[in-house]
Amino acid sequence: MPPASPVDRADLRARVTKAIDAILARQRPRLDAISDELGALCDALADFQLDGGKRLRPAFAYWGWRGAGGEDSDEVVAAVACLEWLQACALIHDDVMDGSDTRRGAPAMHRRFAALHRTEGWRGDPEGFGQSAAILLGDLALIWADESYHTSGMPAEALRRGQPVYDEMRTEIMAGQYLDVLEQARGGSSTERSMRVARYKSAKYTIERPLHLGAALADAPRALVDSYTAYGLPLGEAFQLRDDMLGVFGNPSHTGKPAGDDLREGKRTVLIALTVERASPGQAAVVRRHLGDPYLSAEGISALQEAIESSGARARSEQMISERTEQALAALAAADLTAEARQVLDDLANAATARRL
Amino acid sequence: MPPASPVDRADLRARVTKAIDAILARQRPRLDAISDELGALCDALADFQLDGGKRLRPAFAYWGWRGAGGEDSDEVVAAVACLEWLQACALIHDDVMDGSDTRRGAPAMHRRFAALHRTEGWRGDPEGFGQSAAILLGDLALIWADESYHTSGMPAEALRRGQPVYDEMRTEIMAGQYLDVLEQARGGSSTERSMRVARYKSAKYTIERPLHLGAALADAPRALVDSYTAYGLPLGEAFQLRDDMLGVFGNPSHTGKPAGDDLREGKRTVLIALTVERASPGQAAVVRRHLGDPYLSAEGISALQEAIESSGARARSEQMISERTEQALAALAAADLTAEARQVLDDLANAATARRL
Repeated sequence: MPPASPVDRADLRARVTKAIDAILARQRPRLDAISDELGALCDALADFQLDGGKRLRPAFAYWGWRGAGGEDSDEVVAAVACLEWLQACALIHDDVMDGSDTRRGAPAMHRRFAALHRTEGWRGDPEGFGQSAAILLGDLALIWADESYHTSGMPAEALRRGQPVYDEMRTEIMAGQYLDVLEQARGGSSTERSMRVARYKSAKYTIERPLHLGAALADAPRALVDSYTAYGLPLGEAFQLRDDMLGVFGNPSHTGKPAGDDLREGKRTVLIALTVERASPGQAAVVRRHLGDPYLSAEGISALQEAIESSGARARSEQMISERTEQALAALAAADLTAEARQVLDDLANAATARRL
Repeated sequence: MPPASPVDRADLRARVTKAIDAILARQRPRLDAISDELGALCDALADFQLDGGKRLRPAFAYWGWRGAGGEDSDEVVAAVACLEWLQACALIHDDVMDGSDTRRGAPAMHRRFAALHRTEGWRGDPEGFGQSAAILLGDLALIWADESYHTSGMPAEALRRGQPVYDEMRTEIMAGQYLDVLEQARGGSSTERSMRVARYKSAKYTIERPLHLGAALADAPRALVDSYTAYGLPLGEAFQLRDDMLGVFGNPSHTGKPAGDDLREGKRTVLIALTVERASPGQAAVVRRHLGDPYLSAEGISALQEAIESSGARARSEQMISERTEQALAALAAADLTAEARQVLDDLANAATARRL
């Protein structure tokens, strides 16, 4: 067997982590110079960022670049690592908004700082302190995303080409998050509306936009950008549909979230919209009774799982995932890109939508 | 009388507002294309941003550029308008963290969206919805700050020079905000610690850093950058000390905040630290009893004002403002910069620290 390629997936993950670490190493002395009390912010972001996530977004951006004929370099890895910082902002702020307790198997950032407040016996409301700290940590992550991009060492001209993609992607994420919050508030369950939230909050920015970023950095022709859309959009939706399934049926040791957390939070996912559309009166009553109950018991979770399953929503969701993944793979097969990128993007399509239940 | 100079202060304010409006005009169709429900975000940011603030930060950045010999242009105005977006992020997130009701005489963003939730009769907690919307609005403002900077039309080389200043400034603000939150939680009242919070949360980023940004865009010599620090740091502290005074003694119709709001929130400002240091046992009891009381009455406000006054803290604070303003003006007189910039920075020093009580 040949030695592992220097650009295989685990290796790329490690290089992205190194780039993230380099940003932290640059920020720490800057913060220490202001006050020795700011180390807690760096520690928190280091724990959050260096835990070895899947690094899916940088991987898609990197292969968007390589697929367009861009050469491997540490500079491009540092530039696309910005997407992990952006994701950190989105997740940390999302957890504040949802009031989530855990993330990646550890306390959510606002819980971590609430705990610090309690340990230190400070004044006022520990939860309020935790929320404030998490809002600021998310802001720092958003700022450091830019720094990761601009200090990557990529040619200025390439960075300038990527900037509009990066800008539009960031606005889309925040818009998608707002639509998500709005959807929970309306309590609606239309598949169409849920799908739109999924598209902007997650699908586009997990796959299509990262590919576009890599393509823009490499000055790819319009046809390749379009191919990336034809592959990335359905795959992104399949990814989000899978994520919704994992939120309901997934193994907590894989998801990093307690079982039933999405159900307890009452998330209006596509899976839930499909359930409500298909539900018998009895199944609908189960959804009304249990979905969004903050004290949801193990029995309540089982009842909801059963309703989702027996309504046919789970099967329909699996079918939607398959259709979209096949559509993505067909677009990939037809795309004009390097053979190595085609192979890796094929692998990544499976990694992003695999059952892992 | 000659016609008003094209670069006088009111005119610059109007041009900054125009640049802000141009960003909104660019974002609105982008958001509308995602969903017609996103207009509420644009409307909210438009109301927040177009109300005719003082535009102090862009003014200092602009005059930092002009002082270094940079020519007037719409491009430099568009670039420095990024500071108003950054400020919007800081204020919107700050109001969430402080639980403030009003800003610039209107409901704070989180209150505005909580009211929308109530009007629409949506599900769940209106306050939670308002907070989520405000977190996302602050994120959008932070993102649009970048877009304002990068799409300003300034030469790429100039933008590249300004980027590290812009990055460091943004990290400093968030660090300063965290120290502020920490200071409230600790309930400490050391003048030294309060001064450090004031320095990072506000002083540096209101005056010194904007001047540095203008200087970097213009490729100013090191000596001028140092002069901007010698002028900007003490002036920024004087500005923040004045802001603290306005928060306690100011006229609500000028501050845009209800009387006593800072006292009700229990802000650990330098003014409060000075009071605690100088307080007689009776004055100290007044501070302990009333500071941070969310239901603080008009009598409570008067009692606190009286304690701050009679302890000598108000006079000491006025003295500190005078000392710092004089120090700044002396540094300005000694600086090697264009005559016009010197004149305007002299005026701005007075505008930033004027009593306006």
